[in-house]
Amino acid sequence: MKRVRIQQTVLSHNATTADALRQHFAERRLLVLNLLSSPGSGKTSLLERTAVALRDRLRMAVIEGDLQTDRDAERVRRAGVPAVQINTAGGCHLSAEMIQEVLPQLDLTGLDVLFIENVGNLVCPAEFDLGEDATVLLISVTEGDDKPGKYPPAFLKADVVVLNKADLIPHTNFEPQRFLDDLSRIKGDLPVLTLSCTRGQGLEAWFDWLQARIRLKKEGRRA
Amino acid sequence: MKRVRIQQTVLSHNATTADALRQHFAERRLLVLNLLSSPGSGKTSLLERTAVALRDRLRMAVIEGDLQTDRDAERVRRAGVPAVQINTAGGCHLSAEMIQEVLPQLDLTGLDVLFIENVGNLVCPAEFDLGEDATVLLISVTEGDDKPGKYPPAFLKADVVVLNKADLIPHTNFEPQRFLDDLSRIKGDLPVLTLSCTRGQGLEAWFDWLQARIRLKKEGRRA
Repeated sequence: MKRVRIQQTVLSHNATTADALRQHFAERRLLVLNLLSSPGSGKTSLLERTAVALRDRLRMAVIEGDLQTDRDAERVRRAGVPAVQINTAGGCHLSAEMIQEVLPQLDLTGLDVLFIENVGNLVCPAEFDLGEDATVLLISVTEGDDKPGKYPPAFLKADVVVLNKADLIPHTNFEPQRFLDDLSRIKGDLPVLTLSCTRGQGLEAWFDWLQARIRLKKEGRRA
Repeated sequence: MKRVRIQQTVLSHNATTADALRQHFAERRLLVLNLLSSPGSGKTSLLERTAVALRDRLRMAVIEGDLQTDRDAERVRRAGVPAVQINTAGGCHLSAEMIQEVLPQLDLTGLDVLFIENVGNLVCPAEFDLGEDATVLLISVTEGDDKPGKYPPAFLKADVVVLNKADLIPHTNFEPQRFLDDLSRIKGDLPVLTLSCTRGQGLEAWFDWLQARIRLKKEGRRA
């Protein structure tokens, strides 16, 4: 009971900071996306692909969350994108306070979208609002088609699912229809974009989704 | 600072319960293994393979940890193994108290090994001792060869690494040597067993490791 109360206090404090961040982003009409997934589902690969393909069409920046190393920030910087690395030193998720703390390191002027790549963890990050407009949940087909039912909080928080590594479907026992059926029991109207970052397949639907969100945000509507 | 103290209290309480469990298991000379991995790395598949292949050579039981559903317990039961499902209702790891609570549901008489399949999460479960003799860390090659450096606590806790889905290496950019080099910077002497549960390849080394541990435990030596 005591732990529940402590957790509620932490979440309530986080929500206050997240609301302040959301206001800050809204004033700039800057779209902010929270990327959630298990370790190694392809969050950084998606950012690299997006950076290269849309180089002439949009300006992006990235906040990277990892327990250790600045490998992911280095990867997106090599793709030509400004990036700030947060090391949680063992912490299992990013918090709104961490975002607030590193934000001064980024120049938001003229940016179209800020991606926040969360710590690789399909559980804890789902509880923490970071002031984002939307949550992008990545699942790789190699994780199995049974994940929606087993990890409901992440799917409930998500606004879109990116089903990555689709090129590996023929080599696994992943059945797309079983995944969709399972998902429909958790959140039936959640759009699913099936693609492969390594092969560069199916990315157009993701680029379209992203650019539509940016347009909505620039028009001052809820993105 | 306050959160750090709370966390230390939780961990200290968990350690006390874990020690009691370890004593309980030691009196029965029962080997207990804590299975850790990201979601979908193949923990349940490894248990299914082990149950079927070693059916005539050892007696096992399983405690399954998941946020929701009893799918994993059902899977191992179908492989002929007694299983108890813990649903954490959103909780990101198993605790020693949860194990203590469900233990009366299992008949430990004559068992050779008790597997505890933790919640799919490469971060939080690494902090919680469950009274196990050893931790088996599963990584699937599709998660990428950069995981040791990015998730040190799980690798530091592990006693053996099962590198699963090796059949998919030709279809990914996973480089075994890069993985081993990264691992050597975290814990150089950690044994790595490379295998494929779905193809049934490389499993003998895992069976040998497991049976050697069971023998040690039965002899009353530190398994």
